[in-house]
Amino acid sequence: MDYQSLGASSQKEDVHAAIKDSGSGGGLFPGAFCKVIPDMLTGDDESCLIFHADGAGTKSIIAYLRWRESGDPAVFQGISQDALVMNIDDIACTGLVDSFIVSNTIGRNKFLVDANVIAAVIRGYETMAAMLEPHGIHVHSCGGETADVGDLVRTIIIDSTVMSRGKRSDIIDASNVVPGDVMVGLSSTGQASYEPMANSGISSNGITLARHAVLEHGYAETYPEILDPHVDASMAYQGRFHLDDPLPGEDMTIADALLSPTRTYTPILKRLLYGDDASTRIQDVVHGIIHVTGGGQTKCLNFGKGIRYVKDDLFETPRVFRLIKEEGNVEWEEMYRVFNMGHRMEIACTPDFAPKVIAASKSFGVEAKVIGRVEESTNPGKNELVISSPAGEISYGP
Amino acid sequence: MDYQSLGASSQKEDVHAAIKDSGSGGGLFPGAFCKVIPDMLTGDDESCLIFHADGAGTKSIIAYLRWRESGDPAVFQGISQDALVMNIDDIACTGLVDSFIVSNTIGRNKFLVDANVIAAVIRGYETMAAMLEPHGIHVHSCGGETADVGDLVRTIIIDSTVMSRGKRSDIIDASNVVPGDVMVGLSSTGQASYEPMANSGISSNGITLARHAVLEHGYAETYPEILDPHVDASMAYQGRFHLDDPLPGEDMTIADALLSPTRTYTPILKRLLYGDDASTRIQDVVHGIIHVTGGGQTKCLNFGKGIRYVKDDLFETPRVFRLIKEEGNVEWEEMYRVFNMGHRMEIACTPDFAPKVIAASKSFGVEAKVIGRVEESTNPGKNELVISSPAGEISYGP
Repeated sequence: MDYQSLGASSQKEDVHAAIKDSGSGGGLFPGAFCKVIPDMLTGDDESCLIFHADGAGTKSIIAYLRWRESGDPAVFQGISQDALVMNIDDIACTGLVDSFIVSNTIGRNKFLVDANVIAAVIRGYETMAAMLEPHGIHVHSCGGETADVGDLVRTIIIDSTVMSRGKRSDIIDASNVVPGDVMVGLSSTGQASYEPMANSGISSNGITLARHAVLEHGYAETYPEILDPHVDASMAYQGRFHLDDPLPGEDMTIADALLSPTRTYTPILKRLLYGDDASTRIQDVVHGIIHVTGGGQTKCLNFGKGIRYVKDDLFETPRVFRLIKEEGNVEWEEMYRVFNMGHRMEIACTPDFAPKVIAASKSFGVEAKVIGRVEESTNPGKNELVISSPAGEISYGP
Repeated sequence: MDYQSLGASSQKEDVHAAIKDSGSGGGLFPGAFCKVIPDMLTGDDESCLIFHADGAGTKSIIAYLRWRESGDPAVFQGISQDALVMNIDDIACTGLVDSFIVSNTIGRNKFLVDANVIAAVIRGYETMAAMLEPHGIHVHSCGGETADVGDLVRTIIIDSTVMSRGKRSDIIDASNVVPGDVMVGLSSTGQASYEPMANSGISSNGITLARHAVLEHGYAETYPEILDPHVDASMAYQGRFHLDDPLPGEDMTIADALLSPTRTYTPILKRLLYGDDASTRIQDVVHGIIHVTGGGQTKCLNFGKGIRYVKDDLFETPRVFRLIKEEGNVEWEEMYRVFNMGHRMEIACTPDFAPKVIAASKSFGVEAKVIGRVEESTNPGKNELVISSPAGEISYGP
């Protein structure tokens, strides 16, 4: 099974090619993790803005199934967290981690999705705001739009757009990753001190592959609205699992595993970047922060120039990803392209600073370790990546 | 044929009820057309923000059909205009009409929609920005997100989120509408001097009803992806028209009529609100500006208190709406609830000021006239509306 054949894409090459001549790229720091734009709202030359859109993708389909089977719409609160964190953790990679203004956009099929679901989605944003507030991270939920568009949307699609403003001097510009740096990974599993329960590590990427590999076909028969008829029938929901089945080897169900809300690392990044009154300028030691989302562990290939990323000590592959790999017969090479595989945030920093990164993460109960290092590329000017997988070394790019 | 049975809603009563206890309402000016929030980005007490989300709804389905039949993706540029104007013209109703920062969110079915369409959507935003720039209206298109979510989205859904910042003292608060005001309507048809062609008046509301009433069933057979199977078969695409057929009585095709991009009134509102160096404070004469969108001509019921809106001299019903009414057997009462019916922007102002509003509109080639007046409600504390339709008086609310 592979991601492209299922109508999803981890790299969106065609879209990037189509829009490459538009004004969408660039910004003040073209190599930064997010596009950073001038502060057009105030005109202040020392400030900047990030305006960011993302969503929960097809994870809402699993929540929809869970809701239909259990009758409890609260499961959609996790989907709000997914949609929110896909934005705020991207923005946090640039060093802006103080205040986020959020608008949500929901498209629903009114024949299938009632207003209790919409209410749960809204509550989810408010719950996240309350969770982050004690850590000095202000999430302002400003409403949004719910459209009834059943001829467009089979069930429900949930997106967020987030605005943040900060000082240009605070920006972490991932183009500054240099040979000699180490890569510190922050675990996507376990339970952070600010989280109410343990996380499978799944996040919001690769869910199309996860759904079709793990969930049994009966779901598509009972709920045909969860399937694009253009997906090859031999791949559509070809798994062996019910949502209530246990995730083998873990104390959670398949539903828990696939619906674990995307962890936010913002409390950790805030403490790391702004917690110290050290004389060190943070950009002198933290050269890049990479959110392992679309593109999975290969996301780093987009940052720095002439870099060879060597990831030779990844976390053990979390159970949920092992299950997806086994059930979907997914190649390791594809798994690392699609999923975070154990850490969803990575920090390229000087070797001396790595212990501070690890300590900041562990102070919130999130495992962290040096998972690799940065070398000079063997292919001048191009980035490359080598991952030590359980099946041996895998090379990516250029 | 009616809107609810087709899975759409002009009022979204259930959603409003579900979220009424959430933090989404209110803001600094609870009676204003849009939610106005404190300037949390700078903390400046004299400034405010509007953060607004909306989209082109199911109008993208008609563009999809046109593209599939013609092969030309450029038709999607109009859809970007729809998604953008649904935001900026809402914001302009509060008096903020200077600068808009835009992020777009696209969900597509990758099996059906290729990257040329995405490129056309992006170009559409840039075209609009270029069109408005000479009028002192700055639209900053900041990229966005394209998600491949075929299991969620049948074809393509296009949404925008827009941020604007301004002075609190510039806000037009529609709660200030008072008996004695007149209502000036700005035509939704014809060709504004800043537009490249004539507009049918359709905008982006009521498109679900328009599609099913006007377009022939063969489209749903050839392109089953344009139809929610939950729509009653007796109502699904039950029209008599091909996209290439002429709109009876007009020099445009059905495709042109249904795909006319939503007109922006921002150049007119900018000239009206900021063009004069008069000593009059604009809020003393302009009491409310209402964008006739979801809820159609009944939208005004949401603004002011104890108001009776009397609309007794509307523009002649544009051809495209007459066609929808006739083909769909839609009641007049429903037509005014769903469509703009001839003017998509209305200004409640003092009688003395009405000629200035009309002159500002006409200076851009957009017809305008007094379409009604504001009286005291016969139902104290509640708003009501009387429309003089071709079939006689129709009353709405409370």
